[in-house]
Amino acid sequence: MNQDYLWIEALKFNDQGLIPAIAQDAEDGTVLMMAWMNKESIQKTLETQEVHYWSRSRSELWHKGATSGHIQKLKSLYYDCDADTLLLKIEQIGNIACHTGARSCFFTEAKISYQ
Amino acid sequence: MNQDYLWIEALKFNDQGLIPAIAQDAEDGTVLMMAWMNKESIQKTLETQEVHYWSRSRSELWHKGATSGHIQKLKSLYYDCDADTLLLKIEQIGNIACHTGARSCFFTEAKISYQ
Repeated sequence: MNQDYLWIEALKFNDQGLIPAIAQDAEDGTVLMMAWMNKESIQKTLETQEVHYWSRSRSELWHKGATSGHIQKLKSLYYDCDADTLLLKIEQIGNIACHTGARSCFFTEAKISYQ
Repeated sequence: MNQDYLWIEALKFNDQGLIPAIAQDAEDGTVLMMAWMNKESIQKTLETQEVHYWSRSRSELWHKGATSGHIQKLKSLYYDCDADTLLLKIEQIGNIACHTGARSCFFTEAKISYQ
């Protein structure tokens, strides 16, 4: 393994070998989606600079946007203090991250107060 | 249950009864941390308007900031298109979300390109 990538070995994957990855617009900070990555998808993301997740429903590597064209170009990547969550700062091609056509998957606001 | 909170029943919790929750600064969009919630912690968060997570390491309700003073005031809450991730927009009291004293838990940038 390339020495630059030793940090991947330090990540804490869950018992399915996965780690949650938050995708955030690198420019304006909008949180676009959360999905899961495994080691292979992280490596593929770094090799291509395009975000690859692990699809839990299809059990396969998921090159985000490969069919829709809405790929995510990786700008920077952070991991958190206990190394069990990733934050991907990305450029969202087409400005649509969600399969519904919305810009962000978080388009539903919940009611949070009584009355 | 209060009718306003029926959306909680529609959330998809994992087989431990948990759902990931991303905390984002409501003002400037900084992603501060990711932790887990269960139904009880969501309800407690809504009742108090202060964020409560579920601590997986201690297996207990975790009133964020109860000891440090760095509580998180809930401003708004979103769930994603498949209702399995929460996005909490918060006011971070003390401007410190991380137990290390950092503002955000995502303070470690990884090297993402060869050379």
